[in-house]
Amino acid sequence: MASSNMKFLGQKLAQSIDVDLMSKYGYSIDQLMELAGLSVAQSIAHEYPAGKVLLCIGPGNNGGDGLVAARHLKHFGYRPVLYYPKQPSKDLYKNLLLQCSSHHIPLITDLAQEASNCDLIVDAIFGFSFHGSVRAPFDSALNILRQAKAPLVAVDIPSGWDVEAGDVHGLGLSPDMLISLTAPKVCAKHFKGRFHYLGGRFVPPDMAKELGIPQFPGSDQCIRLD
Amino acid sequence: MASSNMKFLGQKLAQSIDVDLMSKYGYSIDQLMELAGLSVAQSIAHEYPAGKVLLCIGPGNNGGDGLVAARHLKHFGYRPVLYYPKQPSKDLYKNLLLQCSSHHIPLITDLAQEASNCDLIVDAIFGFSFHGSVRAPFDSALNILRQAKAPLVAVDIPSGWDVEAGDVHGLGLSPDMLISLTAPKVCAKHFKGRFHYLGGRFVPPDMAKELGIPQFPGSDQCIRLD
Repeated sequence: MASSNMKFLGQKLAQSIDVDLMSKYGYSIDQLMELAGLSVAQSIAHEYPAGKVLLCIGPGNNGGDGLVAARHLKHFGYRPVLYYPKQPSKDLYKNLLLQCSSHHIPLITDLAQEASNCDLIVDAIFGFSFHGSVRAPFDSALNILRQAKAPLVAVDIPSGWDVEAGDVHGLGLSPDMLISLTAPKVCAKHFKGRFHYLGGRFVPPDMAKELGIPQFPGSDQCIRLD
Repeated sequence: MASSNMKFLGQKLAQSIDVDLMSKYGYSIDQLMELAGLSVAQSIAHEYPAGKVLLCIGPGNNGGDGLVAARHLKHFGYRPVLYYPKQPSKDLYKNLLLQCSSHHIPLITDLAQEASNCDLIVDAIFGFSFHGSVRAPFDSALNILRQAKAPLVAVDIPSGWDVEAGDVHGLGLSPDMLISLTAPKVCAKHFKGRFHYLGGRFVPPDMAKELGIPQFPGSDQCIRLD
């Protein structure tokens, strides 16, 4: 299904595409996050049976995508729980969390215990804006994720990976599924898991052509790339 | 698939549910409109082959749902065109239209000509806030829609119908498909077309239980009711 001329984005290009989507193409962050998070939930629903899903939520947009995905997973019959240790004060995130709580999606604090007692783990901690090294509490969180037996699903980028070079810090996360959003990032070339999906069906045709984005099937919000 | 105890909403209840979704449940209008419009496009994709779709867009939220649906239909391989004679100045609508134009979705002005030269017509003119009588230019627009040969899809409510009593003005629209959003309105009991769908997969579980909303299948954003 993958398009042979599909572009893999570096950090700067990914950031400028995001800016373009929200300026010259007229999207709001709410719309993009809703469609991105929905595509994450749908990709999961295509490959894993309903069960308990632990979503690890970071403080930025990658975390926002995870909160949206959690809500849709609940609608799809999964049992999501959230690990969300750094909750930003912006209304966008507060409202996404309120939506989760009104869907009876619990917040958990003991990550080690929950990670050993779930069917699937979603890494929505850091995305394409990440650089530098991982700080507390996410350093120990990633250590727990690395050791967990449940399959790991990475949203856009495995957390702690360099957007281009991959796992330069040797954190050792090995996701079973990677869901690239908008377009794959360069580090996706280092992905060794079973399922590589592309989500975020909002790229206008001119940009899609330039990036070599494949045609998604039917009315799905995601496409399997590998 | 329909739930036997599903509630049909009157105008006041529909309005108060909308307020609740955007206050105590924390949704933004962008999110609700995105999911509603996506569910409209998906319902259409479930029943009609790809072709030219004329979307008639009103000045309020029903029109906004239509603009979102047009964009998703384009992604699904349809050829949408927009009749949008009253364009409000609010940023929400301007941005939805900008998204459509960046998807190369044309605006048309000669409704009669286009209505006789398309495969499907979507009525996204008036929704559950409508009351009173239909004014220009929508009075003549509805007359054209009534006489068109292409199947008609009504978004939430056939335009000009009373939310509860149905076609009290005798406008004579007879949609082939009705896509109720959030929950059916009372007037849906007068719908005589082939396909009745429910869209808008965002109703939190407590509200869904109270309204008797059925479980949607898989990761679909819509469910056929009849």
